[in-house]
Amino acid sequence: MRYLKVLPLDEVLALLSHEFTCIPSTETVLLEAASGRITARPIFGTYSVPEIHLAAMDGIAIVSADTNSASEQHPVTLGRAARVNTGNVVPPGYDAVIMIEDVWEADGNYTIRKSAGPWQHVRPAGEDLAESEMVMPSRHLIRPHETGALATYGITQIEGITVRIGLIPTGSELVAPGTRPAPGQVVESNTMMAKAMLESVGARCTRYPFVEDKPEKIRDAIIKACKDNDIVIVSAGSSAGTKDYTADVIAGLGEVLVHGIATKPGKPAIIGKVDKKPVFGLPGYPLSALTVIREIILPFLRNYGLFVPEPQVVRAGITSAIPKEIGSDEFVLCTLGKVGKRWTVSPQSKGAGVQMSAVRANAYLRVPRESEGFNTGDTVDARLMVPVQEAENALLITGSHDPVIDYLADLIRSQGVTLLSTHVGSMGGILTLKKDECHAAPTHLLAEDGSYNSTYLRKYLPGVEVDLLCVAGRQQGIVSRDGIGFSDLPGRLFINRQKGSGTRMLLDYELKRVGIDPSAIPGYEREVSTHIAVALAVKSGEADTGMCVYSAAKALGLPFVPVAQERYELAFRKKYAEDPRLAALIAAIRSPGFKKILINLGGYDTKETGYIRQGNF
Amino acid sequence: MRYLKVLPLDEVLALLSHEFTCIPSTETVLLEAASGRITARPIFGTYSVPEIHLAAMDGIAIVSADTNSASEQHPVTLGRAARVNTGNVVPPGYDAVIMIEDVWEADGNYTIRKSAGPWQHVRPAGEDLAESEMVMPSRHLIRPHETGALATYGITQIEGITVRIGLIPTGSELVAPGTRPAPGQVVESNTMMAKAMLESVGARCTRYPFVEDKPEKIRDAIIKACKDNDIVIVSAGSSAGTKDYTADVIAGLGEVLVHGIATKPGKPAIIGKVDKKPVFGLPGYPLSALTVIREIILPFLRNYGLFVPEPQVVRAGITSAIPKEIGSDEFVLCTLGKVGKRWTVSPQSKGAGVQMSAVRANAYLRVPRESEGFNTGDTVDARLMVPVQEAENALLITGSHDPVIDYLADLIRSQGVTLLSTHVGSMGGILTLKKDECHAAPTHLLAEDGSYNSTYLRKYLPGVEVDLLCVAGRQQGIVSRDGIGFSDLPGRLFINRQKGSGTRMLLDYELKRVGIDPSAIPGYEREVSTHIAVALAVKSGEADTGMCVYSAAKALGLPFVPVAQERYELAFRKKYAEDPRLAALIAAIRSPGFKKILINLGGYDTKETGYIRQGNF
Repeated sequence: MRYLKVLPLDEVLALLSHEFTCIPSTETVLLEAASGRITARPIFGTYSVPEIHLAAMDGIAIVSADTNSASEQHPVTLGRAARVNTGNVVPPGYDAVIMIEDVWEADGNYTIRKSAGPWQHVRPAGEDLAESEMVMPSRHLIRPHETGALATYGITQIEGITVRIGLIPTGSELVAPGTRPAPGQVVESNTMMAKAMLESVGARCTRYPFVEDKPEKIRDAIIKACKDNDIVIVSAGSSAGTKDYTADVIAGLGEVLVHGIATKPGKPAIIGKVDKKPVFGLPGYPLSALTVIREIILPFLRNYGLFVPEPQVVRAGITSAIPKEIGSDEFVLCTLGKVGKRWTVSPQSKGAGVQMSAVRANAYLRVPRESEGFNTGDTVDARLMVPVQEAENALLITGSHDPVIDYLADLIRSQGVTLLSTHVGSMGGILTLKKDECHAAPTHLLAEDGSYNSTYLRKYLPGVEVDLLCVAGRQQGIVSRDGIGFSDLPGRLFINRQKGSGTRMLLDYELKRVGIDPSAIPGYEREVSTHIAVALAVKSGEADTGMCVYSAAKALGLPFVPVAQERYELAFRKKYAEDPRLAALIAAIRSPGFKKILINLGGYDTKETGYIRQGNF
Repeated sequence: MRYLKVLPLDEVLALLSHEFTCIPSTETVLLEAASGRITARPIFGTYSVPEIHLAAMDGIAIVSADTNSASEQHPVTLGRAARVNTGNVVPPGYDAVIMIEDVWEADGNYTIRKSAGPWQHVRPAGEDLAESEMVMPSRHLIRPHETGALATYGITQIEGITVRIGLIPTGSELVAPGTRPAPGQVVESNTMMAKAMLESVGARCTRYPFVEDKPEKIRDAIIKACKDNDIVIVSAGSSAGTKDYTADVIAGLGEVLVHGIATKPGKPAIIGKVDKKPVFGLPGYPLSALTVIREIILPFLRNYGLFVPEPQVVRAGITSAIPKEIGSDEFVLCTLGKVGKRWTVSPQSKGAGVQMSAVRANAYLRVPRESEGFNTGDTVDARLMVPVQEAENALLITGSHDPVIDYLADLIRSQGVTLLSTHVGSMGGILTLKKDECHAAPTHLLAEDGSYNSTYLRKYLPGVEVDLLCVAGRQQGIVSRDGIGFSDLPGRLFINRQKGSGTRMLLDYELKRVGIDPSAIPGYEREVSTHIAVALAVKSGEADTGMCVYSAAKALGLPFVPVAQERYELAFRKKYAEDPRLAALIAAIRSPGFKKILINLGGYDTKETGYIRQGNF
């Protein structure tokens, strides 16, 4: 079955609004759990608060008329007075309270030097709430502090609205989280994600057991879920593969309204109607599913009265182009940060299976349907996936990747700094630094003269004050399954790093030095972008060998033969040295804790760790 | 005991930071509940995802070299090919996938018309995550969608950080929520509020049983709570009344660092140290307690690594002055809305016992310590207590209050509009309308000629296009416990409405008409600001009689003798008639549902409900 009709996103949302009468479910919620819930009906006070006049201060209750003649010159000792603390009942007949600070007491008698107005420092009955008054209307989002007011007014439970959503995971290849998937198996994660996303706005989700790829079983599951829920979501099987039955099953039970949505990712989605209820078919790729939930299902829940916040938006300059064909709304995960006074946003990998993109991203872009994409340097709307304060504390590290960068990210979190690293290789980092679009660039670029990094800074950032902070001396070497060395490379299936990466430049430098022709190395043209990806290709048998740092080989338990020690440094513009985010990173690199990490990981020389080469290279 | 030292807010926060080593507690959290939690330590992948090359598309797995010669002119029928769906393993030896759309199948043979590059449409092993890679650092706030990624990576539980907080309610006057308080009793609501506020940022609170006002019992409770928690909060008893023992007890167990904080409300707060742990004494007034939690305890929790968002701020014009003495930071609850293109913010009542202020407020102001206050019209920072989208949907209704306004608020909530009403009487509403600081003003102002409202609009908003929408004809009358009428007023203890209110003007008009001298009515000078407050004063015995609308008398079950029917109208500038918020209100007033409400409440004439008098009065 091919896609029935591919509808633009805005038409999908309009269709949902007119096809479905969205009546939420209600449930009784104890006050202790009422914060964050939305009222199903108005709440009224059943008694006044206070019910009787109370003292608003610690002092004495008096009859105001008794005090009329009191003054500094003519103190009055009161015949009638009663000691009261804040909140005590003002005894009948008394109509004011005088603060204890303004009272002189002797032998049980009270003297005052100032007259008191009627009702002064008295909380009159009903001051807070009068019997029968409306406390809050229906469809009101209860804020945490309001639970206190509700308790005071005698409300111990509320009727809250919710939307009951049934989540059906389908696919014979699924295994439960916690089970290591065998080849061809997949951990079922999309209903876990959907539940957390949908419940964060007040829906109530039920995850049903896995359903095999058999139309009759999918059919039975949908029938059952439709009985017990307001909305049903079938995870996967929505595409056009040989085992994608969801659309046919929905058509058999009711009606398929939409099959295929003009978004990227998220295209293979289904919207159907069974028993007047919406049944969604969610694409299998996690980031496609994420997009459909965020852009379609969550906004749709507003029709039921749930509060779904719009993402906060900041205007940011984009660091690389996003080309695109007209016709689909495209959503791109990004890293966003503030370099100097400017927000800067970098698109991430587009692979819809790369869930780490959504872990690393703190923002996303919507490239509109009618647009041909964004050009480098365009100012665009970045939609935040974190609170804006957290984005303001993002430290953008762009360049050569090393596992220790992740450990540094961990070390500086306690100072509230979020390190976001983008892996573009050393040369990519230097160029990003030149454009002033990152805070620092990790780099290990070997020049012809055997020096590291400074030659390239001189060439690409002439006249700019840049400091170089040594992270570590680092061993690069040959990783393999059988312990081969550099001279054994010819004829072995190789996995390479991308052009512009320091490791690639070191490889080419060494090949030239010892006189090996790259064409003698099969696989030389196959590139990946991290050390660990090289080691993994070797471990999985995709390649026989590659070049990477020791820690990556060690992490996967592979033999490693050293080739060279290089200088892995962090380059940054001097003007940012005092930026608290960068200062936290510098302090972390210089900390004893970090040296310990380097030693534990192995393959690092810590002699010059933390040393700064200053200046204008 | 008087206040030990009254410290400014910023010094209190600094003192907390240097007095306490804030180490959070950790707890194991199942992945299902991990959204919103903060990681205690970094999380690493234990296997690669995927572990083996997978098809990224539905299609056929092939050997890319076999396709080199394929073109439109020279189709190639492949000798080696395997049908794969998205996510299937790419069989060993194959190195690319061709989409099913680009394949022609006949008799089990596949023909292609385009060459395929190596690794095209293949998800390489480790594309998402490589074994041993860090997924997220410590102190990372897990977002809902990330639970999916964690499930995929085999993570089924996380170590989350929290702060264990013990909440001790003290006071012999306390009763539990749900118990109607007898005179002098108080519903214990502050620990309920504290728990909801503190748990909303990830703390884990325990509410202990009520403790009587006895020093030794308070002492025992603090000792126990200190054992089981990271922070202890003692609710009430922090002031200077005769039963305020908290400070003395803390001093006996450890040290009182602060007694008295230069904030308003919130001054009578205590910070102590027992067993190296912070022990807070919370003031008893709910809004004082709210202020101490929001301005001191929540920010302090950041020291433990919890994420406590800063309130979003909008710049708004203030509608009335806030005079203030230098020396304290003052916090004022407000209603905020957008009239035309301008944010406008109105301070609410300052009574620290009026919890409804915090229910009605959607923003608050901080008037800084060194400031002498704000003047009317100043542009100030309004801190939001709701998402900014909700504030943007606020409909500001300022003027004469009637219970039906609350019912209208309820009716329009389903359209996402939040009606915020400020009760300043009819004349106050007209003047606010003149300043263009509200969307509409409910008004019932009787002119000498017997006409309602239009005369005043002509006088105060000359030349401005204002429409008058009839809410209802409304009966005003005399409320009492014994059924007296208008002519019985002289000599009876009266409760009056404030000057400028329509009810007051009607009273004065009628008194003049029948020739009763106000000085013959005791209590004529005592003013309250709503109908229900008048009825309540009569019910509680504070007054014998007053003037109000029928629905207020009926709500409290009191006799009511009609005096006049008046025209209760909504005045609004014509330019806002199309504003969706106001349009929703107009539609609600004209709806059959609203007529039914008016009839049920009683005392309203619905003949002209919904009728609009247009124009320039």
